[in-house]
Amino acid sequence: MKTQRVDMFVSPMGTPSDVSGLQKLADAGKIRPDTLVALVGKTEGTGQHDDWGRVWADVALREWTAKFLSIPVADVAQRVIFVLSGGCPGVITPHIAAVTREMVEVDQPSDEKRLVVGRAGSEPMAPEDVGRMGQIHKVAEATRRAMHDAGLTDPKDVHLVMVKVPGLTVASIRDAESRGETVVSHDLTFGPEGAGSYANDAAALGVALALGEVKESALSDGVVRRKWELYSEVAMTSSGGEKRHGEVVVFGNAAGAQSPLRIGHAVTQDFIDAQGVRNALQSAGIHFNGGLPDEKDMADRLVHVFAKSVIPGSDQVRGQRITLLDDVDAYQIGKALGGMLIASVTGRTTNYVSGGERNSHQGPPGGNIVAAVVRVT
Amino acid sequence: MKTQRVDMFVSPMGTPSDVSGLQKLADAGKIRPDTLVALVGKTEGTGQHDDWGRVWADVALREWTAKFLSIPVADVAQRVIFVLSGGCPGVITPHIAAVTREMVEVDQPSDEKRLVVGRAGSEPMAPEDVGRMGQIHKVAEATRRAMHDAGLTDPKDVHLVMVKVPGLTVASIRDAESRGETVVSHDLTFGPEGAGSYANDAAALGVALALGEVKESALSDGVVRRKWELYSEVAMTSSGGEKRHGEVVVFGNAAGAQSPLRIGHAVTQDFIDAQGVRNALQSAGIHFNGGLPDEKDMADRLVHVFAKSVIPGSDQVRGQRITLLDDVDAYQIGKALGGMLIASVTGRTTNYVSGGERNSHQGPPGGNIVAAVVRVT
Amino acid sequence: MKTQRVDMFVSPMGTPSDVSGLQKLADAGKIRPDTLVALVGKTEGTGQHDDWGRVWADVALREWTAKFLSIPVADVAQRVIFVLSGGCPGVITPHIAAVTREMVEVDQPSDEKRLVVGRAGSEPMAPEDVGRMGQIHKVAEATRRAMHDAGLTDPKDVHLVMVKVPGLTVASIRDAESRGETVVSHDLTFGPEGAGSYANDAAALGVALALGEVKESALSDGVVRRKWELYSEVAMTSSGGEKRHGEVVVFGNAAGAQSPLRIGHAVTQDFIDAQGVRNALQSAGIHFNGGLPDEKDMADRLVHVFAKSVIPGSDQVRGQRITLLDDVDAYQIGKALGGMLIASVTGRTTNYVSGGERNSHQGPPGGNIVAAVVRVT
Amino acid sequence: MKTQRVDMFVSPMGTPSDVSGLQKLADAGKIRPDTLVALVGKTEGTGQHDDWGRVWADVALREWTAKFLSIPVADVAQRVIFVLSGGCPGVITPHIAAVTREMVEVDQPSDEKRLVVGRAGSEPMAPEDVGRMGQIHKVAEATRRAMHDAGLTDPKDVHLVMVKVPGLTVASIRDAESRGETVVSHDLTFGPEGAGSYANDAAALGVALALGEVKESALSDGVVRRKWELYSEVAMTSSGGEKRHGEVVVFGNAAGAQSPLRIGHAVTQDFIDAQGVRNALQSAGIHFNGGLPDEKDMADRLVHVFAKSVIPGSDQVRGQRITLLDDVDAYQIGKALGGMLIASVTGRTTNYVSGGERNSHQGPPGGNIVAAVVRVT
Repeated sequence: MKTQRVDMFVSPMGTPSDVSGLQKLADAGKIRPDTLVALVGKTEGTGQHDDWGRVWADVALREWTAKFLSIPVADVAQRVIFVLSGGCPGVITPHIAAVTREMVEVDQPSDEKRLVVGRAGSEPMAPEDVGRMGQIHKVAEATRRAMHDAGLTDPKDVHLVMVKVPGLTVASIRDAESRGETVVSHDLTFGPEGAGSYANDAAALGVALALGEVKESALSDGVVRRKWELYSEVAMTSSGGEKRHGEVVVFGNAAGAQSPLRIGHAVTQDFIDAQGVRNALQSAGIHFNGGLPDEKDMADRLVHVFAKSVIPGSDQVRGQRITLLDDVDAYQIGKALGGMLIASVTGRTTNYVSGGERNSHQGPPGGNIVAAVVRVT
Repeated sequence: MKTQRVDMFVSPMGTPSDVSGLQKLADAGKIRPDTLVALVGKTEGTGQHDDWGRVWADVALREWTAKFLSIPVADVAQRVIFVLSGGCPGVITPHIAAVTREMVEVDQPSDEKRLVVGRAGSEPMAPEDVGRMGQIHKVAEATRRAMHDAGLTDPKDVHLVMVKVPGLTVASIRDAESRGETVVSHDLTFGPEGAGSYANDAAALGVALALGEVKESALSDGVVRRKWELYSEVAMTSSGGEKRHGEVVVFGNAAGAQSPLRIGHAVTQDFIDAQGVRNALQSAGIHFNGGLPDEKDMADRLVHVFAKSVIPGSDQVRGQRITLLDDVDAYQIGKALGGMLIASVTGRTTNYVSGGERNSHQGPPGGNIVAAVVRVT
Repeated sequence: MKTQRVDMFVSPMGTPSDVSGLQKLADAGKIRPDTLVALVGKTEGTGQHDDWGRVWADVALREWTAKFLSIPVADVAQRVIFVLSGGCPGVITPHIAAVTREMVEVDQPSDEKRLVVGRAGSEPMAPEDVGRMGQIHKVAEATRRAMHDAGLTDPKDVHLVMVKVPGLTVASIRDAESRGETVVSHDLTFGPEGAGSYANDAAALGVALALGEVKESALSDGVVRRKWELYSEVAMTSSGGEKRHGEVVVFGNAAGAQSPLRIGHAVTQDFIDAQGVRNALQSAGIHFNGGLPDEKDMADRLVHVFAKSVIPGSDQVRGQRITLLDDVDAYQIGKALGGMLIASVTGRTTNYVSGGERNSHQGPPGGNIVAAVVRVT
Repeated sequence: MKTQRVDMFVSPMGTPSDVSGLQKLADAGKIRPDTLVALVGKTEGTGQHDDWGRVWADVALREWTAKFLSIPVADVAQRVIFVLSGGCPGVITPHIAAVTREMVEVDQPSDEKRLVVGRAGSEPMAPEDVGRMGQIHKVAEATRRAMHDAGLTDPKDVHLVMVKVPGLTVASIRDAESRGETVVSHDLTFGPEGAGSYANDAAALGVALALGEVKESALSDGVVRRKWELYSEVAMTSSGGEKRHGEVVVFGNAAGAQSPLRIGHAVTQDFIDAQGVRNALQSAGIHFNGGLPDEKDMADRLVHVFAKSVIPGSDQVRGQRITLLDDVDAYQIGKALGGMLIASVTGRTTNYVSGGERNSHQGPPGGNIVAAVVRVT
């Protein structure tokens, strides 16, 4: 029978356009044109919406991939999913993680669960869908198909779902309103009432719906960015105005897969919860001594950590006041703090940490999602 | 015989001028006009040199103290030392720690070492002393007298030395140059060649000299902010243009003291070293389970943590590149990251964390000083 | 008969709590407890909502005023209106303008129009009123009463209306929703969909309604922050969560008034329109040589300039793209730019310039309000 | 005889990598591979030293130029000088100005002076030269050769000298010190004692020396960034660590030149001096009505304005205090304010405005350089 063999390779980037790490992986045969399925990374720059570091990285990585795959740049998106999160404040090393997948023939698949990956595009999302039930349903549907593509049936085996969905733009709002439709917000930012936040959070609820983390009956337009007790433990979502469809990448563990990797996850309970990060490492299979992850095991086997750093909606952490919400730089500082929380546990700075926005259905209220990928063999 | 009884009380502040916590301590008799010796705190605001939150807090706290002690505001400085560090980015709760000291008669002092505190003012420091051997020697001399005031003789018993020294101003530079003297820098900032950085670092070397951490023969004007291998493990220093004298407060443990508290310290080895923070807690006497501090013991007995968060002089952390040094907000983010490192270990946000500057003789290259005060009884 | 005699005195402030300028005015008899009606100023600090420079200035000025008027601090608000705008980025000198008013007996009032000032408080505004018709109507009504208080009947004689209204808070939103009401926004910021922006803009439309600049039939909840062609040429508004009532201060010229001052105003057509600033000076009576204001006349007679610096809603200025809207510091930079536009025309930096928000019904789309007060005699 | 024919074309850029404007100029034959001599522009981005917008623009423009000239990218620098100034805060439109030069045969050159341009590279500059007499002399020498290349002999005919020189890097400091040499500063920033500032200012003094604005006897290492009364009225300088040689481009007017353009300049007397900007326009030949430039003449004939916006070294502007020097964003805001000062006079936002640093020998103390290029025919 055919099963997946998935691998993941993390390369630091020296500048936004540094593709030398990818090229080395290609030269070494670790990534091949027919196996590369996703590039997920952190790019240096301001992390703001006009972050030219991220834009330049996107252009450079797509150009490299087009050459590598010998296809036009415009066709790259159909072959390889790009998730580039801008901004590496503090102790987040700019890097790119290449994900490869191939189908291998096995006689007798083992029972042990190993990493698999699945992808799916969603139905087109109209501007009036954004941040609402329309978007939730379409993401849920695509998540189910991505699980199928991954060969996953039990939601418990899903440990990370990365989603990209359309947000709103001046043009798409005009389009919707010219057709007599309304939109969820006229604020195009990722602020508390921003369209970008609504899009991200509808996408997270879509994942939660597909995985049974939230019941359909609990969902309505009105709960998005209002009922924070509804959330996904595994959805990391982003949105961009220029897109028309959603894209979903599911990571999980499946019996029989031939991958040398396994994934696990956990959530932090609040913004300073290092134990939540350790739980994610343990879930993925890192060995522990006493309460701490074994440093040598991490050095030898920890492939990568993916974490959100959404800042809390409250100014209280464990009953004490913090001033982060008042900070004009909260977005930047919030992301940096997530980077430190992860790095102080993993002992390395090459972690994928995105976030900075305030409150989210990605993870529990005040807490955040952490997923870890570990090399088994 | 007479021995010290020192106590410390930490109150969160709701605004820069919030003295309600101090008033409650006063009302409860925990701090008295004749026992209050120091107020050390973090104030909310920008943390920049024109941080009006810090200035307002300073004014409000001095006014409260003057009333409490029934003395004019101008005389407060002779009775109570103020160390207010501006800026609470991220997860640092604005707070004030009141330190009290009284001399108590004991028949038979125990052998157990307990917290003592000592203070001393330095000789006047001329502008041409700032950041140079003149300042180093005067701080060393005052440190020795503060140790004496604390009843400490062995440098190993000293765990924290807080120092405030004069920096430079436009006026003091003019004064020095009009007398034919030179000054260490015309840059009045805390940048890499800033007078504020030189002053802080000369003060740190002064402490190091007094405590024997650095030999006199290793010191010269030329090593300040050049030879980073010379440093103190216990000096936390600050400087301000308006001062003429240095002030030194020494915290240590002395046999026979009747204080209910004990202090310990450690240094982090690099910017993400959570183990260094744990070592400081252990040094002070917090119980550990496996590799982690016991949460209940911390909740019951940990009084306060004092930490620096100097950012590294290199763009490498454990061999990986970070972009922090390039960040225009490095000062702010660096301080915030230190706050997260401490909070993620102590499980609380009311920690004293100052820093943000780049490189220092306060702590080893790339690492930082962490001191912890624990209630023994 | 009795007519008004209004005067205005501008004092720079050396720090947020510097009341020495006011004290000098008081010592010189220029402001008296029975004549002081308003303090309008720019305070140094971040200009953000947690700007401690502004808060400290507010506290210090109220304390000084309470002493000056020999009344409790809590009663100051009933006697003197405070309009303190935080943030002096660039070339805006921190300052306070004291406005005095007294009623003087005249036998034969002259026909010449001179400065008058009127004040009124509004009806209480519920959270559900904020940013909607309820607020618009209550501000309009108060504006009419303030005009009456000023002795003004013709809207053409009104040149500046300063308004402060309640915004929303977490608590007031909860209150409204618990009563089954909705609120205009859950975003508490001054962002494009922020409650603060809605409150400011409803207040501006209230002024426009009272002055006949906008017809009642053109107004509805739906036009606020949507139909930018509806605006006031004279309304400068601000909002704060802690208030329950609106406050309105009207400045205009009335025949018979005995004031030594006259006010005028104009609007800029776009963000770089220096001619609009010059028009305001000319409207107030500054002499011109060729196209430029006479510098000596400005030095001798220009008392003060009040200007908004709302940033445009479009990224185009005179057909050319600017990147200001993308700038994470747009609020700060937008305010600074307004300060430069005014200072480069008046030749002084002690100008009242508030703003930084994006789009407003205060002034025409892309343009801003400028009012000038000139000494006549 | 042969004389120069110089032209200049300004294209807005829609993104950092937007070369469409240049391509249109190429397609229209306005710029040719054999005539293009310089590209001078403002790029969008942070304006900080790790401004990826500027870096990306540099890469994209060099790649386009290499294709246009049919040469390798590495050879572009020998043919075309690039001066890209990062950061367009406020009302500065990102743009690129292409400068062309060709030698044309004329029978009888007219007496009228028209725009000429000259270029020269300097001798190599060692790290120990940077910010000192070595750099001053080498820039002066290159300036004289660039004048010669331009066909200019009288310094009065020189209106703009753009210079790029080496700054310092960690590596070049190490190199110098390993040879027993000292360097001007260990601070690599553009702060008040930063190596970048010293390099820029030594370059400015080099121009001043070449043009006779400053006497050689007045110069020494000790005057750089100390004696502000020594300055050039026409030098706009920048520095970068990676360079080894200086580059100089001189713009002036020469009798006989066949260019359709003329250049003029003036300096502002202080930071809000709009009259200084108008003087520059008048110097270049813009017509004035009363005291104001004729708007139609500006629209028809003004080709471009080049201006510095160095922030003052003092906190006083015309006797009034400003808080700009205390502002953590002074660099950004200072640049933005210069953009407004120019735009409010020229009525357009496509102006070259660089600056933000504090104090300079580029222009008089507190004031700035403004040069204008006008189309004559």
